[in-house]
Amino acid sequence: MSGAESEYTASVVGGSGFTGGELLRLLYQHPEFDVVQATSRSKERKTVGHVHPNLREMDLRFTSPEDLESVDVLFAATPHGVSMERIDEFEAAADTVVDLSADFRLDTEAQYDEWYDGHVRPEYLEKAEYALPEINRENLSGASLIASGGCNATATILGLKPMFDAGILEGDEQVVVDVKVGSSEGGAGGGDASSHPERSGIVRPYAPIGHRHEAEIEQFLGLSVSFTVHAVDMVRGASATCHVFPNSPVSKGDLWKAYRGSYADEPFVRTVAGGGGVYRYPEPKSVAGTNMAEVGFELDPSNRRVVVFSAIDNMMKGSAGQAVHAANVALGVEETAGLEFAGLHPVGSP
Amino acid sequence: MSGAESEYTASVVGGSGFTGGELLRLLYQHPEFDVVQATSRSKERKTVGHVHPNLREMDLRFTSPEDLESVDVLFAATPHGVSMERIDEFEAAADTVVDLSADFRLDTEAQYDEWYDGHVRPEYLEKAEYALPEINRENLSGASLIASGGCNATATILGLKPMFDAGILEGDEQVVVDVKVGSSEGGAGGGDASSHPERSGIVRPYAPIGHRHEAEIEQFLGLSVSFTVHAVDMVRGASATCHVFPNSPVSKGDLWKAYRGSYADEPFVRTVAGGGGVYRYPEPKSVAGTNMAEVGFELDPSNRRVVVFSAIDNMMKGSAGQAVHAANVALGVEETAGLEFAGLHPVGSP
Amino acid sequence: MSGAESEYTASVVGGSGFTGGELLRLLYQHPEFDVVQATSRSKERKTVGHVHPNLREMDLRFTSPEDLESVDVLFAATPHGVSMERIDEFEAAADTVVDLSADFRLDTEAQYDEWYDGHVRPEYLEKAEYALPEINRENLSGASLIASGGCNATATILGLKPMFDAGILEGDEQVVVDVKVGSSEGGAGGGDASSHPERSGIVRPYAPIGHRHEAEIEQFLGLSVSFTVHAVDMVRGASATCHVFPNSPVSKGDLWKAYRGSYADEPFVRTVAGGGGVYRYPEPKSVAGTNMAEVGFELDPSNRRVVVFSAIDNMMKGSAGQAVHAANVALGVEETAGLEFAGLHPVGSP
Amino acid sequence: MSGAESEYTASVVGGSGFTGGELLRLLYQHPEFDVVQATSRSKERKTVGHVHPNLREMDLRFTSPEDLESVDVLFAATPHGVSMERIDEFEAAADTVVDLSADFRLDTEAQYDEWYDGHVRPEYLEKAEYALPEINRENLSGASLIASGGCNATATILGLKPMFDAGILEGDEQVVVDVKVGSSEGGAGGGDASSHPERSGIVRPYAPIGHRHEAEIEQFLGLSVSFTVHAVDMVRGASATCHVFPNSPVSKGDLWKAYRGSYADEPFVRTVAGGGGVYRYPEPKSVAGTNMAEVGFELDPSNRRVVVFSAIDNMMKGSAGQAVHAANVALGVEETAGLEFAGLHPVGSP
Repeated sequence: MSGAESEYTASVVGGSGFTGGELLRLLYQHPEFDVVQATSRSKERKTVGHVHPNLREMDLRFTSPEDLESVDVLFAATPHGVSMERIDEFEAAADTVVDLSADFRLDTEAQYDEWYDGHVRPEYLEKAEYALPEINRENLSGASLIASGGCNATATILGLKPMFDAGILEGDEQVVVDVKVGSSEGGAGGGDASSHPERSGIVRPYAPIGHRHEAEIEQFLGLSVSFTVHAVDMVRGASATCHVFPNSPVSKGDLWKAYRGSYADEPFVRTVAGGGGVYRYPEPKSVAGTNMAEVGFELDPSNRRVVVFSAIDNMMKGSAGQAVHAANVALGVEETAGLEFAGLHPVGSP
Repeated sequence: MSGAESEYTASVVGGSGFTGGELLRLLYQHPEFDVVQATSRSKERKTVGHVHPNLREMDLRFTSPEDLESVDVLFAATPHGVSMERIDEFEAAADTVVDLSADFRLDTEAQYDEWYDGHVRPEYLEKAEYALPEINRENLSGASLIASGGCNATATILGLKPMFDAGILEGDEQVVVDVKVGSSEGGAGGGDASSHPERSGIVRPYAPIGHRHEAEIEQFLGLSVSFTVHAVDMVRGASATCHVFPNSPVSKGDLWKAYRGSYADEPFVRTVAGGGGVYRYPEPKSVAGTNMAEVGFELDPSNRRVVVFSAIDNMMKGSAGQAVHAANVALGVEETAGLEFAGLHPVGSP
Repeated sequence: MSGAESEYTASVVGGSGFTGGELLRLLYQHPEFDVVQATSRSKERKTVGHVHPNLREMDLRFTSPEDLESVDVLFAATPHGVSMERIDEFEAAADTVVDLSADFRLDTEAQYDEWYDGHVRPEYLEKAEYALPEINRENLSGASLIASGGCNATATILGLKPMFDAGILEGDEQVVVDVKVGSSEGGAGGGDASSHPERSGIVRPYAPIGHRHEAEIEQFLGLSVSFTVHAVDMVRGASATCHVFPNSPVSKGDLWKAYRGSYADEPFVRTVAGGGGVYRYPEPKSVAGTNMAEVGFELDPSNRRVVVFSAIDNMMKGSAGQAVHAANVALGVEETAGLEFAGLHPVGSP
Repeated sequence: MSGAESEYTASVVGGSGFTGGELLRLLYQHPEFDVVQATSRSKERKTVGHVHPNLREMDLRFTSPEDLESVDVLFAATPHGVSMERIDEFEAAADTVVDLSADFRLDTEAQYDEWYDGHVRPEYLEKAEYALPEINRENLSGASLIASGGCNATATILGLKPMFDAGILEGDEQVVVDVKVGSSEGGAGGGDASSHPERSGIVRPYAPIGHRHEAEIEQFLGLSVSFTVHAVDMVRGASATCHVFPNSPVSKGDLWKAYRGSYADEPFVRTVAGGGGVYRYPEPKSVAGTNMAEVGFELDPSNRRVVVFSAIDNMMKGSAGQAVHAANVALGVEETAGLEFAGLHPVGSP
């Protein structure tokens, strides 16, 4: 944690938002990174701990986002659209840029235009590497521009990937993905809908159709999904339930083999499928505050449906944790460095 | 509310459970019913208000379930299996019996055996009328044995029925139903999994496959669904999201016509589909404490999917409210009597 | 509920806020009032149900606050300071004005200036009657200007009043009042602090010192209290714990006698003090959605402390319910009319 | 984390409870301890991860509590009364015993008998060292029997101690302590009152008077407090609000000096008193999952009251974290080892 021992300097652009705060926490306690700058226009000159009360011991004040210090790694936790505008500045300031927005997640301008508005620097789309090591580890090593994935896309991709790896899914199947997310996904701003009285205790259709994370799923799995996102009463967490109808019959043994095959050696994915006790399937609570993803499944004999469950902390594996993990891989640091926190039990609505 | 003006006497067998408490509340404030007995083995001789703090003004003590008084209507809110054992006693005590368990919901012994254990009085399966007026109003009038539906089945049936009424669905389609329920569905008992520390903030696959309410859906809609239930952090409420793939293309206009056609005259179903503001689709919060169901839909142009949302208070429209509604119909009382409460805004996790 | 049968016309100025919504709900289901106007500058021309989803069946649209219709009773649910500016308009529009802000709660300009900013129409301070019938019933009858009390003041006054009535307290004692409130107290606006991620799961010192409701407590009890308010994770509810140190020893029998003496005939206060079961003392949950106040006490033999608990729904007994109750008394309507809802069990964070 | 590098072996007796789980988490990720045994009668032979889902990667199964392995440090997380029965076994198994129950917190048999039932091994009361380093660091070094403090006592003692250190309080003052706690304080068992439907959204007088933690406060501060505990809707956390009436006037400067004087060098206490932003005072959320205590204050000029706020995670600083901290001190390990986790922002009801 002490800067004296750290190998790399790091900065966070957009440090007063929720994902910015998580980045700062992870970097503050990371053995190989030393945070030298955190920017925030609205909180300039305030301490990091003024905004993020868990970081009161951190001796750092937000600076203007205009003057970027030279660092080894720059993490951008700004709203969609900012990074593509400032990419030249970011690259001038750092050898490695990790962007947490949607600006560089997709591969082509055509894809981007289909799901977002016009891209001002489309030439960077191909250059950027997607941050999820489980599907892109080999390309992350030495990467200079990394795009951290969308939280709901991350949960879905991790849940379904083993079925593609094992040939159980081929891409033309009917797949319904029903996602439940916490309020931190809305970011630190939020309007009426995210005020506590209106947001508490809800099961609210948040994106009934047309959620942009579908684009990432299609890009990486080659699968067009029926995707619906609900907001529920938790702060952290994203849970994707994928209702999958394989073309050929599949057994539980096939599924176990597929998931073990894909994830046995992954430090941040574990398979939880049945067994006894209270926690039989993936749950966001079980991984809250950690970089772990839980994936699992159940087989519905009545109609050959496979129900796949995937749970992550949207702020961690779905955002800041994934970004730090990718930076570790990019710089050749121990993959799990700074990401070892095991999570809590019991924990409420983390 | 005063017994002096009430037309009918009523009793609640199993009054100390959650649905028993809701029945007592509804009957206590019902203009046409006068509660003369509430039974509870575990709380015998305690006041109703000792268990249900909202009913401290109610001047009634629980009695043994053995000695049933003669009443016009007996509501049984006992665990599954009790009513079939005691049906002779219930019928001897009351002209109209409304059972809130699963004992008489299905039509045939074969159906029952498929989803539950052996029925000891299968001859009553055909006799009993399903309590949901929206699909069975004509048969409820004058019925002597009424079976209140399952909460998740009720939400699903109400959500999908208009598409069958309008011929948009025919019964052979792929339909995925992803349900989110509150903790009151587990009843007053509950084990480790329903303790506050373990149950707070969860998105927990509660019945990934094989939920028994599928049987009711199949019975009334002629549709075999892919059904998965999640427990989320609320106390009251059931929300069913139905991902429907009609055989033929459908427009938003077709959907509006279908839902208006089925529900324009229903006092306890309203259609909420889009529009502005915070509450654009059905939400359990919006109907908490009421007998209202909200249904709505969205059309996914990308793959001809219709996403149907249905939200109820599982304790009300999904149980005690439905039971009182059915009793109103059965006895020829004003349908909405005792069920007028409009609900609250804002409300947390009702 | 039908306007045809109602005796009085009513309007709500400021109908899109939380207390405005509660007023509309109560008046909509009130047998003697017929709502003819609800105003809202920000939601002009929207339906009431657009903002308050529980009121979708109500056939009314918000109008501009400029043009007030003539009614029998006008309820003002506007921010502090508005009513004193518009009091002439309000009085021109209605025979009876019930104001839910703090503008007319205090008796003198000196008091007002001590706790708030300068009053523009101080001559109305003496004229206005405080809305709490339990301490001011005789003056409410026929009153033309009524000031609904502050929620935390209401809870505290109702909790302590019996000890003054019985002479157990005299006004010079040390009394610490530690209040816990829900998020609806902050109103529909709210800033960062009331966003769901920041507001969930908190025990937050919200007003450590200097809360303005102290002024009302001092006015009505003649008691200067040590007052601290905490925000906790619920939407509705205010719970006041009063730590009282009487000058002379007191017994449990004395306390029971005092509380029964003050409240035996009150329709909206009940005493809950010990006994068995889960709900042994006052709790906001037990009265959520209702106009009931629960008060209770425990005696600490170790230091002659009396611990008094008082729980209300801040939106109801602490605001809109109290206002309607007072209007009932003012107009000679049945006191409990429109306020009979018994509340729910179980209920989450109502 | 790897056993190979650890200096000491450790065991947890009673590892399937909530505090047992926290101990296992802390020890699993502790650089100097290697967990070689976790016992649980009810979960014998189950993996640790079966009960504590955050610890699925931990390769350990619960064993019978009968056969204790020899270790350097044994942590006992058993219900009150067990450790005094088994103290000989514990001492035979380990050089250092850290007990998390109330069995050895008090100094004398007389004190114990006043607050608990008869002690079977009173000779150990004097021998045991209280685990809170902030008040007992010098005696913990090399201690062989350590008693981890009660969570509510810990919060209160840490909040008030600086005022005693600085001579602002002397022990004869009136002090009201109003505590708010989460549901994890009730432990993994729990009855009806702790089921999710009954426990959600509450402000419940949990121990209106006579809470046993008063004994520890009196023992360490020489102060008899008026103590009341409320249960509120969070899982982790204890917040103590102390209403203090010093004999002599005090200024904010005096208070800052006192708190800085006591805690400037403490790694696990920070002072939070005013300032701007959302988090101006101590909050349990800000320290959830960490071993940090937040203390702060506000001065009420109207009546010379000092309001002191103190917030901890009851499972950490109030139990397992305090125990590990004390063990670190006892064995001469770096004080903060294994306790560095900074906590999360935002976080719901942790």
